[in-house]
Amino acid sequence: MARFRINILGCGSATPSLRHQPSSQVVDFRDNLMMIDCGEGTQLAMRRMKLKFSRLSHIFISHLHGDHVLGLPGLLSTLALHGKTGRVTIHTFPEGIEVLQKVVDFFCREPGYEIVFEPVSYDGGVVYEDDALTVTAFPLYHRVPCVGYIFREKAKPRHLIGDMVKFLEIPVSKLHGIKLGDDYVKPDGTVIPNDRITTPPDPSVSYAYCSDTLYDPRVAKAVEGVDIIYHEATYIDADMQKAHDRGHATASEAARVALAAGAHRLIIGHYSKSYENEDRHLAEAEAIFPNTILANEGLTVDLL
Amino acid sequence: MARFRINILGCGSATPSLRHQPSSQVVDFRDNLMMIDCGEGTQLAMRRMKLKFSRLSHIFISHLHGDHVLGLPGLLSTLALHGKTGRVTIHTFPEGIEVLQKVVDFFCREPGYEIVFEPVSYDGGVVYEDDALTVTAFPLYHRVPCVGYIFREKAKPRHLIGDMVKFLEIPVSKLHGIKLGDDYVKPDGTVIPNDRITTPPDPSVSYAYCSDTLYDPRVAKAVEGVDIIYHEATYIDADMQKAHDRGHATASEAARVALAAGAHRLIIGHYSKSYENEDRHLAEAEAIFPNTILANEGLTVDLL
Repeated sequence: MARFRINILGCGSATPSLRHQPSSQVVDFRDNLMMIDCGEGTQLAMRRMKLKFSRLSHIFISHLHGDHVLGLPGLLSTLALHGKTGRVTIHTFPEGIEVLQKVVDFFCREPGYEIVFEPVSYDGGVVYEDDALTVTAFPLYHRVPCVGYIFREKAKPRHLIGDMVKFLEIPVSKLHGIKLGDDYVKPDGTVIPNDRITTPPDPSVSYAYCSDTLYDPRVAKAVEGVDIIYHEATYIDADMQKAHDRGHATASEAARVALAAGAHRLIIGHYSKSYENEDRHLAEAEAIFPNTILANEGLTVDLL
Repeated sequence: MARFRINILGCGSATPSLRHQPSSQVVDFRDNLMMIDCGEGTQLAMRRMKLKFSRLSHIFISHLHGDHVLGLPGLLSTLALHGKTGRVTIHTFPEGIEVLQKVVDFFCREPGYEIVFEPVSYDGGVVYEDDALTVTAFPLYHRVPCVGYIFREKAKPRHLIGDMVKFLEIPVSKLHGIKLGDDYVKPDGTVIPNDRITTPPDPSVSYAYCSDTLYDPRVAKAVEGVDIIYHEATYIDADMQKAHDRGHATASEAARVALAAGAHRLIIGHYSKSYENEDRHLAEAEAIFPNTILANEGLTVDLL
């Protein structure tokens, strides 16, 4: 079982090509599949990567350009034909809900599962939360309103030191609180500080998806402290003017965001079709942020 | 230059799979590309088959199930991004126009080409005509309204016998009429019968697309005399009940249609995903109509 894995389904820009598919990723958090963006061909990429339709629960859309959305009608229709049950929640801007709802009503008649649309604000905010994970949207800076998404594990419980628990004869009823950081007060009133009876929790990890956007320091600020950042790198520096004109970033700009944010690792993608390969993207990003990897269809990256 | 070629872009049923793509074909008639159906992934299949976006002029939709339509938004959006000019006419039922127009308005803003929707009647009729070709819709018998399409070359001019034209000193002004079958009347009033000065025209060929449909003798009647027939063969005979329940045909039923229609060749496709391969489909069809071939992604069949 994947505990927290990023699956890259598509990392090309604008249109499907023979080298890259339009944007889509699946965050697999403890077998709960949460998709980000859904370009045409995403459902087939799920099959290729053996990501189960039955486990898909949420779809977060960054913005309403076709290459990030137009795989949705086919995917939702296929889920219905595959006997999907339960619910799929689609998070997108209100104007997208209006048009997508019409398409869904027409092409996914009587699905055996519930299709729910949840509006996302241009300003971002928490869009999903459970016991262990929070998903937060934050503004990006593209030609049209656009948001990125941060998947952040919640703080985990501290580890009890078994020998100490036994030695101090701590009652079971106290253990939960101690794992969350309480000190232990013995029946005689003596206080045993928490760090004597526990060791620190496993680190909570986080992932940020930033596509499509201009280079902007506000993005680095929004993803500060995130462990792994995916940032669009549509162009190389030689085409920086083109990047800026079109609301996109270069690979070196993506690297600057990762550096400023203090990330552990950077994944770049959303490549323009105008390049034969992404060697230059990688070289230019690595020059600034060495721990950079190129996204590719089929790539998986484990956070845990 | 292809003179009259069928390109199979997708020939699977229901959903894209790792073996087959949803329905789409392109009829290339003298470099005018006319598409029939447009399942998800069709634009990528066009790239794979090197079919130029710039030459696409018409898209004929058989019915409004997602696996025949949902590649359309992405394709139209990509055409816009690729600087397509001119016009693309989409032929479909009125209720489809209503929903597709909304999607186009939202996702293909300000395309450099014209997107025109033309309503098709459930009863069929001529949907396209030029100097050399007629495209006619005709009813099929599926769970929802559905039509097939026949592409029929018009009668071609007869061939002049050069030596006779010279010997009789026939004026140039008369040649057009003679090619269309006129006799030649000499200045002295003598009538030279057409077949003395011409040889018969090249045969006019025709292609029919029949998907999705139950087996029905009315289909054979509608495509009588057509040279090459594509007929859906979703199932094999062992699953005939399933075929009938779902408004589909078996391979042997497709063969019976081709036989009754007097076709020269049958192409079968629209395979269910429940089979590992299509060996049984082919064997069962060939037993009734030997000149059967299996559709496959990338297959081209030349009529001329």
